[in-house]
Amino acid sequence: MARIAKSPRFCCCLLSVVFVSQFVERVCGVWPLPQEIQQSAESSGLSPQLFTFTYSQDSAAQAGCSVLDTAFKRYFSIIFPDFTKDALHDMWLEPKAFVLSVSVKTRGCDGYPDEDSDESYNLSVSEGQAVLRSVTVWGALRGLESFSQLVYRDDYGAYFVNKTEIVDFPRFAFRGLLLDTSRHYLPLHAILKTLDAMAYSKFNVFHWHIVDDPSFPYQSRTFPDLSKKGAFHPFTHIYTQSDVMRVIEHARMRGIRVVPEFDSPGHTQSWGKGQPDLLTPCYKGGKPSGTYGPVDPTVDTTYRFMERLLKEVKFVFPDSYVHLGGDEVSFACWQSNPSVGKFMEKMGFGRDFTKLESFYMESIMNITAALNKTSIVWQDVFDYHERIPQGTVLEIWKGETYQTELSKMTKAGHRVLLSAPWYINHITYGQDWRNSYAVQPQNFSGTEEQKKLVIGGEVAMWGEYVDATNLNPRLWPRACAAAERLWSNEEKTLNADLAFPRLEEFRCELVRRGIQAEPLFVGHCKHEFNGL
Amino acid sequence: MARIAKSPRFCCCLLSVVFVSQFVERVCGVWPLPQEIQQSAESSGLSPQLFTFTYSQDSAAQAGCSVLDTAFKRYFSIIFPDFTKDALHDMWLEPKAFVLSVSVKTRGCDGYPDEDSDESYNLSVSEGQAVLRSVTVWGALRGLESFSQLVYRDDYGAYFVNKTEIVDFPRFAFRGLLLDTSRHYLPLHAILKTLDAMAYSKFNVFHWHIVDDPSFPYQSRTFPDLSKKGAFHPFTHIYTQSDVMRVIEHARMRGIRVVPEFDSPGHTQSWGKGQPDLLTPCYKGGKPSGTYGPVDPTVDTTYRFMERLLKEVKFVFPDSYVHLGGDEVSFACWQSNPSVGKFMEKMGFGRDFTKLESFYMESIMNITAALNKTSIVWQDVFDYHERIPQGTVLEIWKGETYQTELSKMTKAGHRVLLSAPWYINHITYGQDWRNSYAVQPQNFSGTEEQKKLVIGGEVAMWGEYVDATNLNPRLWPRACAAAERLWSNEEKTLNADLAFPRLEEFRCELVRRGIQAEPLFVGHCKHEFNGL
Repeated sequence: MARIAKSPRFCCCLLSVVFVSQFVERVCGVWPLPQEIQQSAESSGLSPQLFTFTYSQDSAAQAGCSVLDTAFKRYFSIIFPDFTKDALHDMWLEPKAFVLSVSVKTRGCDGYPDEDSDESYNLSVSEGQAVLRSVTVWGALRGLESFSQLVYRDDYGAYFVNKTEIVDFPRFAFRGLLLDTSRHYLPLHAILKTLDAMAYSKFNVFHWHIVDDPSFPYQSRTFPDLSKKGAFHPFTHIYTQSDVMRVIEHARMRGIRVVPEFDSPGHTQSWGKGQPDLLTPCYKGGKPSGTYGPVDPTVDTTYRFMERLLKEVKFVFPDSYVHLGGDEVSFACWQSNPSVGKFMEKMGFGRDFTKLESFYMESIMNITAALNKTSIVWQDVFDYHERIPQGTVLEIWKGETYQTELSKMTKAGHRVLLSAPWYINHITYGQDWRNSYAVQPQNFSGTEEQKKLVIGGEVAMWGEYVDATNLNPRLWPRACAAAERLWSNEEKTLNADLAFPRLEEFRCELVRRGIQAEPLFVGHCKHEFNGL
Repeated sequence: MARIAKSPRFCCCLLSVVFVSQFVERVCGVWPLPQEIQQSAESSGLSPQLFTFTYSQDSAAQAGCSVLDTAFKRYFSIIFPDFTKDALHDMWLEPKAFVLSVSVKTRGCDGYPDEDSDESYNLSVSEGQAVLRSVTVWGALRGLESFSQLVYRDDYGAYFVNKTEIVDFPRFAFRGLLLDTSRHYLPLHAILKTLDAMAYSKFNVFHWHIVDDPSFPYQSRTFPDLSKKGAFHPFTHIYTQSDVMRVIEHARMRGIRVVPEFDSPGHTQSWGKGQPDLLTPCYKGGKPSGTYGPVDPTVDTTYRFMERLLKEVKFVFPDSYVHLGGDEVSFACWQSNPSVGKFMEKMGFGRDFTKLESFYMESIMNITAALNKTSIVWQDVFDYHERIPQGTVLEIWKGETYQTELSKMTKAGHRVLLSAPWYINHITYGQDWRNSYAVQPQNFSGTEEQKKLVIGGEVAMWGEYVDATNLNPRLWPRACAAAERLWSNEEKTLNADLAFPRLEEFRCELVRRGIQAEPLFVGHCKHEFNGL
C-alpha cells in the first residue's frame, strides 16, 4: 500500500497523467531531462526486501549478461542505500513486491559501446512494477539510471516511485568528458570515480588525454621506456596495462567508451625522454641547443615508431576511435633545424611549416585508417590543412569563433565534436554552469545536413591546475550542464532557471552517491558530503 | 652519522653558514618564511627510535603541560609519518639520538591564546639536538611547526634536518581565517581539519561566522529555539555546545583563538524563526507584508535578547574579542514600518536610517564592552557612524578602496583588520594566490603610528558556493599566501616568483599531512592526495 510522502518537493515536470491515488508532492528529478516524461502523483511503495530486477521472457539478454547483472547489483545499492534498516517499515507497512523487468532486443552483453550504439529506452513504471525496454544493453543502462533517479524516500525513510512513462534517447551520440593525466597524474580511483559520475549524467565517452608534455604515464608494452623515463615517477605515477584494462572494463559496465589520445606532433616533450630520436633537435647559432621541439616529421623512424605505438593502442583500446591530437604545434624548433629545412626543400614546402605539419598528420591519420580506426583530431588540423581523410572527426577547442568553425567544418562535410565552450577547468566565481548550459551546438549557419554532422561534444578538464585534490568539486555538478545539453531536447531545456532546482536536487543525489559535487548556491542537502 | 641526501631539492634561502660536512642539496622550505633563518648544508640524521621531545630544565612549562605534551604527540607523527618501517635503516645506519628541547619562559599551559600572546621563538638546530626557546607555549607551537618543516627524507626514506638558526616572530598579531557556517553547514570535522591546516600556516584566529540569514546552526543554551527553528536541520545541521567546546579546545591546542561572529542587525533572517519579535515586520500598502527585515532596533525586548545572547557568548567563547557584524543593513523594511517611523521621530533621527543603525550598534557595542569584551565590527559601522566606542576593532571588507579606508580609520585612531583583498571564496582561473601575496597591508598614506593600528588581517571563505565538498581545495594553498604576508617580513617576501617553489613544496607537505590542497601548477608530489 502506498503511503503519503510528507516531504514537499518541488515539481519540475508536467503532471500530465493524474490517477486516483494518494497525492505525493514529489515528481521527477531526472537529470539529464528525458525526451518525454509523464509522471503521475500516484506512487508505489518499494520494499527493498521484495524488490527484484528481472529479465523479461522476451529479452535477448538473460541472466548471465555481465553488463546488466552488474548493473542490477550496482543500482540496488544506489536505490536502497541502507536497506537492511528498513525491515522495520515492513512491520507496519504492508509490504508489496515490485519487479523491474528489463527487455533488451539485442544481446551484446560482452561487447563494447561504440559510436553507433543505440542508447534509447522506454520506461514504464506502474503499481508494483516497472518495464524497461531497450534495443541494446547500453540503452537499458540509461533506463536503469533514470529509474534510480525516480525513486525517493519520505520522511519515514520509506521508498517510493511514482507512476511514470518515459520515452528517451540521446540527442547526440557522442557525449564526452576529457581528463588530462599528464599535467597532473590522477590515481586510478579518481578516474573510476569519474566514470561513476559520468554514468549518472549519461555521459558516454571518456576521452583520456593520457600523455602530454609534462609526463607520459601510459606504460606501453612495446616501448616501456616511455613511461619509465617520461612519467613523473616510473612506478607510482603510471598506468599499467592492468590499470588501463580496469578503466576500460569499469567504463564498459557503465556504457562508456574509452577514447585514448596520443597527441602529436606537439605536446610530446615527455615522449622524447624514453624515445631518443623521436623529437626534433632545436638549433641555436648553427648548433644543437640541447632542447627539443615537436616530433621530427622528416625521418622514417618516426613513422615506424608511430605505427608500432598505434598498433599497440588499437590492441589495448577496443574503441573504434583514437584521438591523434595535432594541436598547438610550434614551428620555431623545426625552423631552426637544418635537416628539417632540407626536407622542406625536397618536398617543395617552401617555408610553409603548416605543410610539414599536414604531411605528418596525414601520415599518421593514414596509419590509423589502415588499422581500421577512426581518427579524431583537434581543429588545428582542419585550420591548416586541406586534405582531411574521409571519416576523420574534427574537434573544436578554440573558444572565440566556434560557431564559424562549426559552419566551415560541416560545410566541408566533416563530422564535428564541440568542446570549446565546455573547457570547465576554467573557473569563475558563482554559477558558471549556466554558461555551459546556454551553449547551442547546432546554432550556426548551415543546412540541416550540416547540423547532423555535429555528432556531439565534450567537457574538458585540463590538468594545469587540477589533480585528485580538486578534480571532483571542479567537475561536478558543473559538467552536468553540458550533459543535459548533449542528451536532452534543446527546446525543453532552454531555461536555466527552470533547470536550477532539478540540478540542485541532482547535485545532492551525486553527494549522496559519494561524489564530491560542489554546491550550486546557498542551501543544504539531506545527506551532506561526509568523506573528508 | 649523517648520510648524504640523494634527492636534489631547490634551495630557497641563503646558505649563509657553511660547515665542513656532507653536502646536502636541500635547504629550508619553511612557510611562512621566518623573520631570520640561517641554514647550513650540514645535516643530522634523525632516528625515530632515538628522537625525543623534552622540556629543558629552565623551562617554566614541564611535563604535564597540556598544550605542549599534545603538540609533541602530534608533531612526532607529522615528522615521522611511518616510523615503524624505519627500523631497517638503523641496521645499516649508525643510529644517533636527537633531542629537541623546549624552553618556555612563562607557563600558561591551561590558558587560551589572546591578542597580546607572544608568539616569538628562537630555534637552534645542530648535530644531535635542537633548542627551541619561547616566551609562551604559543611561541613554542610556532617553533615546533617550523622544526617539522625543516625535517626531510632522502631517497632511502631516512630522516634528516640541517643545522639551522631561526629567530622568528609574527609581523601582525592577528592572522585570521573566516569560515561561514550559515550559507552552508560545515560538519565539525571540516572545521577541525581547517584548524589543523591553519596551524601549519601559522594562522592564529579562527573567525567563526557562525550564523547569518540562511541558517542558525549555533545551538544556544539560552535560546534553543534559534537553532531548532533556524538551522537547516534541528539535529544534523547544528553545532551543539559540545561541538563548540571541541572547536575551541582543538584551536587552543594549536594556539588559535576562536572569535565568534553574531552578525546583526542585518543578516539575521534565520534568527527571526526562533525569536518571534526580534525582526522588524515589513509593511506594504499600510499592512504587514508577512516578511521581515533587520533586527527591530526600536524595542526594548531586542536589547534584552541581545544582552542575554551576548552573555552566553561571553560564557561559551573564552576569547576577549567578539565580532558583532553590522554590515549590509538594508533600510527598506525599516522605512516601511510605521512604528519604526515614530521611533525615528521621537529620537530626532529625521529620515536618516544610518542614525538608527548607529543607535543599535552603539547599544550592542556598549553591552559588549560591559561584558569586558572587545568588539569587532565590519567597516559599515565606521562608514555610517561617528561615535565608535574606544577599543573597537574595525574590519575592512570592501574591495575597491581599502587603502583609503585604512588611512581614514587609523587617522581616527581605530585599530583595523584588513580582509577586503583576501576574500578567497572568489576564484579565478590560474594562480590567483599571487593577488593575495601582493597585498601590502601597511601601504597607505598615514603616519607610523597609524600603520601600527593595523593589527592584522583575515582570509575570508564565504559560503555561498562553498561547503565541505570544495572547502579544502579552495582554501589551500590559496590561503597560505595571506598567511605569509601576515607573518613574514614584507621586504623578504616581495617576490612571488621566489616564493613559488617554496609554496609548491609546502603545498605538497599539506597534501602529505592529509589536507586536500590543490596544485599551484603542472607537476606532482611525492605523496599525492589519496583520500578520495
